[in-house]
Amino acid sequence: MIHKFRFGNPLNTEAVVENYPVEEGKIPCIEVKKGEKISFKMTKGRPVYGLGEQVRGINKRGWIYTSDCTDDPNHREDTHSLYAAHNFLIFAEKKPFGIFLDNPGKVTFDLGYTQQDTAEITMDNWDMDLYYIDGKDLKDIVHQFRRMIGRSYIPPKWAFGFGQSRWGYKSEEDIREVERRYRELDIPLDSIYLDIDYMERFKDFTLNDETFPNFPEFVKEMQEKHIHLVPIIDAGVKIEEGYPVYEEGVEKGYFCKDEEGKDFVAAVWPGRVHFPDMLNPEARRWFGLKYKFLLEQGIDGFWNDMNEPAIFYSEKRLEKVFDELETFRGKNQDLMTHFHFKDLVLGLANNPEDYRSFYHNFNGERTPVRHDKVHNLYGYNMTRAAGEAFEELEPDKRILMFSRSSYIGMHRYGGIWQGDNLSWWSHLLLNIKMMPSLNMCGFLYTGADLGGFGADTTEDLVLRWMQFGLFTPLMRNHSALGTREQELYQFSNSKACGNMIKIRYSLLPYLYSEYMKAALRDEMMFRPLAFDYPEDSFADQVEDQLMVGDSIMVAPVHEQNAAGRYVYLPEDMMLVTMRTPEDYDVRVMEKGHHYVPAAMEELIFFIRKNHVIPVAKSARSVADMDFEHLDLLGYVTDKAAYELYDDDGNSKDYENPKHFTEVIVCSNGNISQNGKLKKAFGKFNGIR
Amino acid sequence: MIHKFRFGNPLNTEAVVENYPVEEGKIPCIEVKKGEKISFKMTKGRPVYGLGEQVRGINKRGWIYTSDCTDDPNHREDTHSLYAAHNFLIFAEKKPFGIFLDNPGKVTFDLGYTQQDTAEITMDNWDMDLYYIDGKDLKDIVHQFRRMIGRSYIPPKWAFGFGQSRWGYKSEEDIREVERRYRELDIPLDSIYLDIDYMERFKDFTLNDETFPNFPEFVKEMQEKHIHLVPIIDAGVKIEEGYPVYEEGVEKGYFCKDEEGKDFVAAVWPGRVHFPDMLNPEARRWFGLKYKFLLEQGIDGFWNDMNEPAIFYSEKRLEKVFDELETFRGKNQDLMTHFHFKDLVLGLANNPEDYRSFYHNFNGERTPVRHDKVHNLYGYNMTRAAGEAFEELEPDKRILMFSRSSYIGMHRYGGIWQGDNLSWWSHLLLNIKMMPSLNMCGFLYTGADLGGFGADTTEDLVLRWMQFGLFTPLMRNHSALGTREQELYQFSNSKACGNMIKIRYSLLPYLYSEYMKAALRDEMMFRPLAFDYPEDSFADQVEDQLMVGDSIMVAPVHEQNAAGRYVYLPEDMMLVTMRTPEDYDVRVMEKGHHYVPAAMEELIFFIRKNHVIPVAKSARSVADMDFEHLDLLGYVTDKAAYELYDDDGNSKDYENPKHFTEVIVCSNGNISQNGKLKKAFGKFNGIR
Repeated sequence: MIHKFRFGNPLNTEAVVENYPVEEGKIPCIEVKKGEKISFKMTKGRPVYGLGEQVRGINKRGWIYTSDCTDDPNHREDTHSLYAAHNFLIFAEKKPFGIFLDNPGKVTFDLGYTQQDTAEITMDNWDMDLYYIDGKDLKDIVHQFRRMIGRSYIPPKWAFGFGQSRWGYKSEEDIREVERRYRELDIPLDSIYLDIDYMERFKDFTLNDETFPNFPEFVKEMQEKHIHLVPIIDAGVKIEEGYPVYEEGVEKGYFCKDEEGKDFVAAVWPGRVHFPDMLNPEARRWFGLKYKFLLEQGIDGFWNDMNEPAIFYSEKRLEKVFDELETFRGKNQDLMTHFHFKDLVLGLANNPEDYRSFYHNFNGERTPVRHDKVHNLYGYNMTRAAGEAFEELEPDKRILMFSRSSYIGMHRYGGIWQGDNLSWWSHLLLNIKMMPSLNMCGFLYTGADLGGFGADTTEDLVLRWMQFGLFTPLMRNHSALGTREQELYQFSNSKACGNMIKIRYSLLPYLYSEYMKAALRDEMMFRPLAFDYPEDSFADQVEDQLMVGDSIMVAPVHEQNAAGRYVYLPEDMMLVTMRTPEDYDVRVMEKGHHYVPAAMEELIFFIRKNHVIPVAKSARSVADMDFEHLDLLGYVTDKAAYELYDDDGNSKDYENPKHFTEVIVCSNGNISQNGKLKKAFGKFNGIR
Repeated sequence: MIHKFRFGNPLNTEAVVENYPVEEGKIPCIEVKKGEKISFKMTKGRPVYGLGEQVRGINKRGWIYTSDCTDDPNHREDTHSLYAAHNFLIFAEKKPFGIFLDNPGKVTFDLGYTQQDTAEITMDNWDMDLYYIDGKDLKDIVHQFRRMIGRSYIPPKWAFGFGQSRWGYKSEEDIREVERRYRELDIPLDSIYLDIDYMERFKDFTLNDETFPNFPEFVKEMQEKHIHLVPIIDAGVKIEEGYPVYEEGVEKGYFCKDEEGKDFVAAVWPGRVHFPDMLNPEARRWFGLKYKFLLEQGIDGFWNDMNEPAIFYSEKRLEKVFDELETFRGKNQDLMTHFHFKDLVLGLANNPEDYRSFYHNFNGERTPVRHDKVHNLYGYNMTRAAGEAFEELEPDKRILMFSRSSYIGMHRYGGIWQGDNLSWWSHLLLNIKMMPSLNMCGFLYTGADLGGFGADTTEDLVLRWMQFGLFTPLMRNHSALGTREQELYQFSNSKACGNMIKIRYSLLPYLYSEYMKAALRDEMMFRPLAFDYPEDSFADQVEDQLMVGDSIMVAPVHEQNAAGRYVYLPEDMMLVTMRTPEDYDVRVMEKGHHYVPAAMEELIFFIRKNHVIPVAKSARSVADMDFEHLDLLGYVTDKAAYELYDDDGNSKDYENPKHFTEVIVCSNGNISQNGKLKKAFGKFNGIR
């Protein structure tokens, strides 16, 4: 049951798509001191779930988190804000409840940091809607919330293939090399990403004519090789005379304004830029239609970056800093003086004062809205700009779109990647922990930069990260300029890496089915164990295993030099130890604690009792896959029913019943199916 | 067996105290390309141990480490250098061997980073001695190495008590408050640390007369409360007319020189400083004797800081940076320009060029030695300065001394703390992993800043960290200015924290015995499981459990919100679940894998079969302890013999046989003892 409460006079963020009456009176369970704080006394040992893209555990207890979209590629345990703002959380009390704060400004969640048993939520701005949701269990609360915020974005099927990316591919030739080397090693690949270097001096909707001289032909050449090129789009528009996007934006007044009503000047990759006012519907449409430039050249996927929006410096602050730095010259810099000196320069980036110094024309409101009050909506609306334009330009085709920054509501227009991360084993673990939290908040099409974006990776980290990443809908290896190259062909054991990609492709019928059912039914594809086993008293202790879809539990190895790991089974399950899609062992393991060996080249995962998964033959790309002839792998002592989803992967009649088939496997090994979508099932493997 | 090989014409670092003939011919096992690299092909799955203070695992495989003492308070997984340089490592092959590179310059260890099975060691300077050590097992190799480098430093017994520290105690009154609040809560405490604020504007061997107006009286007042004050000493000497240490150093030529032969100007806490030339025996003696200023006022312990040496900036570089910054004014800073701009300021600190721009008068050598060639000896020799002076000034008394930076050899003069760390759960884990690596290299008196130095801590992190820290010889809670206060009385559950300190004190007879035996016999007090169970095929997989002394295995909880953890038992052991020294449960557990519950307020550890530990009554300080009346706790199915060490904790006749007693516990519960030191044993607890 959802209850909506209103504070003050909130702006409409359009996070929520369903209408609820505003209720008066006391909000259940939580204590509200308006203008001050919302608090809740937590029962000892009861977890808190949610907050989407955030640091630390699946259970969020014991830290202080701030919703304040921030470009922080070096995020650590003690970070408070990542790239997104997802204000939905569930207190998993005996009678669990969720709350969603539809508040686009800064919101701080102290979940047992100051006092171990107390949750306190504070915010800069008390104009907001608060939704209180109770339900019969954790899954039910999430389901209600997800229905309220509208259906999650559905990408084209090819976007479930593997993608290779690196900031540093400079030319057509660089891209061709990636494709060639993957094909040489017979490793499946569906997409290659274009980071900022494809543009002419980092200008959106331009191409570098020297390094990409024949772009439409090049896109076509790659398409013929079944490779989709996915260019990046940045939030800032370069200030440059003669650059049409800049000139049009200025002329039409589509950029964010400073205090004096002039176009606000920040700086990012190209140096000085203006920010398109994504919160102004006219400006948004204008910006969104610019994607046509690339769509027309055959592009069918994009990633939106730097849209927190990140600021390297603002023009005004930089001038001030130059003046201040000068005053230090010749002086003895002791402790505090020196820290102040350094902070001047370090404080140029993403400075809170800068975010308080520009304005939006929000949905045609009369008074300009100061940016910090709606900061967390910027990336959301940049991606909405694209999503709405795609609906207008390509109404019958799915376009790949994912963003760095987001707010709940954006999940309807695109996915997200988990932002710039690092080649750390702890960021592999963070990737695991973030998946269910994001799913709760509607972000289903997501994944992390596999192998790690910043810092130098190692071969074993890449391989172990692939073993988890092969389950995530967005599966992309991405790294930063200046770091160790980490395309799978860079390593001596590229065969083992390649085998993991092949396993990904062979699991696509399952992963795609589970994704589509989760999206169409407002469910989570990735779930903490406690969501599926609410009666199990140990399940909420498990921070590094996840349910993936209906049949699978994953337990990734996330420590260096480990030859296995501890696993908790909440029921009897079948362990699958897989080296290639064809070479694997299965073994039934009993409910309880186990140490499970997993050599470097081995993927381990578990299939639940009386569950099966459909398995296909791997191919070099999604387009080359045969989704008609499938095998089944599973653990059937009685009977297993699996609901398969399949479609052309491109059109949008998602709910057409012809896409669904129910497959039934009996313990005698017989396979039967009903539903519209008839498949040719080969054999059943696993344990009966 | 130790083999010594010589390359070029090495400086004598005095890391090694025994003489070995230089051998000619091929070094066993490893391949040497002189001037290029040393390499070794590692067997798959075989660990590498060592490198002392470094990031990552007990097993060092899979990363690239550099010995290059660096002040890095924000160290992360991908860091290459910490505060120390410990060039000893063991390849745990079927026939294990160790190597020690006595090379005081930069040395890089690629242990399977570039190629998973290959170790490659490279260095800036090929003038060095290389020691190759083989032995019958891992312990034997360490034992031989430790004998070769000389006996580890032994602190006074009171330094095994708990210490409270914070950068931010500004006055006598602040210190009094710490003492008062600990005593109010009846939490044992032996020392309070004085960070940089006790000095007059950060000048070594001065006192701030305003905040510490009657220092000798204050020291005495604290002594009467059984609190030792432990002041910090920094490496840099402030440049200030009228400051005697500065003026003497200039006059006598005791500071490091720049290229032009002038005193080199760097800057740290006080701003501009000179570095005493710790590598010049005369200057070293001069600096060491300065500690007299504090010894005479009743001080009996010190910590040496900033002695990598850390450099905030050098005077010359700062001037250059000011000039360069000016050239950026008014220009558009795009990607590369902006990174360059920021790097100018970020690159001021610990700049490699600065380390190449000053010189030492090394042991009276004719030619000045450029700092970078002997960089890793600086902290070592600062601490040696103090250690040699203490021998001269207080020959019969133990003085507490530990340092931030170190090189092997320094372990004879003092302990180390594990450098500035962060309030991260992963740094608690790093603390665990670093202990055995440091013990291998001779550093027995060591521990980390419990609760974490930088960043804000949480109550549960402090409590869990105490549960490990209570085993480490140096047990100190320390935090940085501006972070959350973390004295144990700051938390709602200070009682549980206090109980852990009481457990520490009740374990002191054991911990002190084990420390002394390890020091006197050149053994490791903290050992990886694989060192004690070489035949156990799983032991080398265990990265978060340690053998502590002869009887105990620890398995600390190091994850937030965890109510227990997985533990591997290499043999049957007795689990001790301890809430206070008096309130605990014991249970025998079988060899193998277990999940062991450990509530927040519970310490868990294990006692080996047929082993006991001596246990005392806790008291408010070490001086208040009764070491004469002890109980025994253990697991005896047959017979357990325990070798107890005790002395006055202050004098230096360490090896006097009267300090040793053998206690024997039979399975019938009878306790007998032989040896000089007779104790009154109360009862045997545990399992028979």
